[in-house]
Amino acid sequence: MSFYSKMSAAELERELLDLNQKYSKFKGMNLSLNMARGKPSPEQLELSADMLKNLEYSQLFRPESKINAGNYGELTGIFEAKKFFADILEVSPNLVIVGGNSSLNLMYNYVAMAMQFGILGNTPWNKLEKVKFLCPVPGYDRHFAICELFNIEMINIDMDESGPKMDRVKKIVESDPAVKGIWCVPKYSNPTGITYSDSVVRQFAALKPAAKDFRILWDNAYVVHHLSDKHDILLNIFDECKKNESEDMVIEFCSTSKITFAGGGISALAGSAANIDDITKIMSKQTIGYDKINQLRHCIFFPSVEKLRNHMSAHAKILKPKFDLVIENLEKQIKPLGIGDWTNPNGGYFISFNSLEGCGKRIYELCKGAGVVLTNIGATYPYGLDPKNKNIRIAPTFPSTDELKMAMDVFCLCVKIASVESLISKKKDTE
Amino acid sequence: MSFYSKMSAAELERELLDLNQKYSKFKGMNLSLNMARGKPSPEQLELSADMLKNLEYSQLFRPESKINAGNYGELTGIFEAKKFFADILEVSPNLVIVGGNSSLNLMYNYVAMAMQFGILGNTPWNKLEKVKFLCPVPGYDRHFAICELFNIEMINIDMDESGPKMDRVKKIVESDPAVKGIWCVPKYSNPTGITYSDSVVRQFAALKPAAKDFRILWDNAYVVHHLSDKHDILLNIFDECKKNESEDMVIEFCSTSKITFAGGGISALAGSAANIDDITKIMSKQTIGYDKINQLRHCIFFPSVEKLRNHMSAHAKILKPKFDLVIENLEKQIKPLGIGDWTNPNGGYFISFNSLEGCGKRIYELCKGAGVVLTNIGATYPYGLDPKNKNIRIAPTFPSTDELKMAMDVFCLCVKIASVESLISKKKDTE
Repeated sequence: MSFYSKMSAAELERELLDLNQKYSKFKGMNLSLNMARGKPSPEQLELSADMLKNLEYSQLFRPESKINAGNYGELTGIFEAKKFFADILEVSPNLVIVGGNSSLNLMYNYVAMAMQFGILGNTPWNKLEKVKFLCPVPGYDRHFAICELFNIEMINIDMDESGPKMDRVKKIVESDPAVKGIWCVPKYSNPTGITYSDSVVRQFAALKPAAKDFRILWDNAYVVHHLSDKHDILLNIFDECKKNESEDMVIEFCSTSKITFAGGGISALAGSAANIDDITKIMSKQTIGYDKINQLRHCIFFPSVEKLRNHMSAHAKILKPKFDLVIENLEKQIKPLGIGDWTNPNGGYFISFNSLEGCGKRIYELCKGAGVVLTNIGATYPYGLDPKNKNIRIAPTFPSTDELKMAMDVFCLCVKIASVESLISKKKDTE
Repeated sequence: MSFYSKMSAAELERELLDLNQKYSKFKGMNLSLNMARGKPSPEQLELSADMLKNLEYSQLFRPESKINAGNYGELTGIFEAKKFFADILEVSPNLVIVGGNSSLNLMYNYVAMAMQFGILGNTPWNKLEKVKFLCPVPGYDRHFAICELFNIEMINIDMDESGPKMDRVKKIVESDPAVKGIWCVPKYSNPTGITYSDSVVRQFAALKPAAKDFRILWDNAYVVHHLSDKHDILLNIFDECKKNESEDMVIEFCSTSKITFAGGGISALAGSAANIDDITKIMSKQTIGYDKINQLRHCIFFPSVEKLRNHMSAHAKILKPKFDLVIENLEKQIKPLGIGDWTNPNGGYFISFNSLEGCGKRIYELCKGAGVVLTNIGATYPYGLDPKNKNIRIAPTFPSTDELKMAMDVFCLCVKIASVESLISKKKDTE
């Protein structure tokens, strides 16, 4: 095998013929495989099976706090659940609000609140002519979808292995008062899997935004989601903010969706005392309270940080071979041809693959044609627009190893076809 | 005993002396009793104890629908849970969205959506100069709090034993396009306990609102919450709407907060196909989905409508003696004095008491002074303003029978004191 880019037009044409023959075979197999969603596998869900039955009726009443988790009250969550998340996020329990099954919903609510009511007495964003958010790319489509729904203008910020390009972030945030927020997945980022460096976190904490109500939405979705014993370390942004008296600038989110059950987890938000007060005030009109019984189940299931650590190791044991399989296939099938690059993360749920420029959508279509569903091309960018049409988010967690092996064979073949097609067409253009 | 209003000033002064002596005794007892919140008692919660342990891991996967309740997916709820609520509300399961622990949150979300995004393509309410809601009174403070938060002007609509005064509702709704909604608790209403008559429901369904996006928010919170075998019957408003092609006008809500666990129930919203689509579109950006494991627990706990019926009878057995105790006390201690009237409902969570005009707040303060907490006076009216300062919502469900007996003795005494004080002061005014 040699780099496709070094092949002649004739060699490429021959290669394409050969690849297309292989593709036909896959097509004939009527596959139905999916590498699109960052979804836990059934084996992972089973790790939490005991949580379904770990609660006695008598345990609903908590003598220490004198509350009954089965009844009304404790709007912002039971203390034990605040403590559970506080330990994970390394913050004080009284700076935590515990939510329902979806941390995305806590994020949505926060943005919706800022739009409608304003943050800490500032003008509601609805009343401003223009609101802008910075979006490190590639990123998480659900974040972008919230901005799009509220007609918040999104500005792409490129990322490297240390995190977002902070010189650009600083320049924009500190000069433009219409910039009200930035979406961050600081650890095992979705989709690149990188973790923000200490320097990046410190630069975030040291920002002096032009807008008083600028907020860093710190979606720590993969805070304990390591793939092996090799852990990335993320600085505690609140500790850094303290040094800059900028604690009000950060709202942190996380959930147990990929710890216990994606369909029945609990979520949390952490912030400064002022922000927690601000949110709680609105929350007291929004809801009677989230499910405290499920909060209690989680606390009983994880009596200690050590139990959580062991639980996440068990997840890793299931996930690591799948990530390895993807990486090995890319190393073996793609690397020698010089038609793509990818990340090899220590945690999280994704591998971010970059094809040759302009090949993303073709790869997606080819895969689809052979029965392999990928994340939509562009999903990792605001407005669904990948400017280079090359980023593909690979989600290896849900399929079985056998399915994944097959899916990766299809994927690598489709990358080759799209690359050869593109190179041929370029050669024709330059002739 | 004779009617206080027929007593002379001197008789009233003597009576007051006597009452105040009794009051001092209660004060000396350092009571701490609460009749403020419509909260289930521990005995009621225990009826659902088995639901805490009724789910095996293997049951998460539902072969019929091929979904796994433990994983992502099924944004609007698992089919079984839709069916559960559809049976209760007598609607089609595909017209149901299942929510989390709080139906209030579904209501808030609906109003918030109308404000921010508009309903079915209509102008977002935020962009209108004025938005008004009709509020049948006395009503539920949490409904009013949502309006107040969004700066929606509330217009009181008096109620009688058949429901809201429909001539007034019709006149306002059909003439003023700024009127966008009405809050209704149509069955065992909060706080009066009355159920809307067939005629009232039919008049609602036949409304021809000036605003295309006028909505009846039909909070059927007590749909199966009977106190005995004597059930009120509420017409199915959607059936009536069909006859008028007005299905889009109604959004119905309910929850299991007072069926299973107030701290861990599930909720639902029902509406026309157009409304369900409209809501689902926004919902797909708002959340990853509600807790489907808890939905499943509920469905397994209630395999049939009969099981639910029996379960609600068990609630009634606990609740009826408490309601009876309140009514008996009022009949015995208050009725002969002509200083109040009250409702005697067949279901729900409240008894609505009306004192002599102007005495509500004084009764509240006196009760508080003797260690008995009542619902805030005015809570049953928009902006917390009871125009006649006389409506008191009595919530007898949470205290034990012994506590309730004591609380009612205090309450009746305080009603007497406030009434005598008021009559004395009136006599002085007219002298």
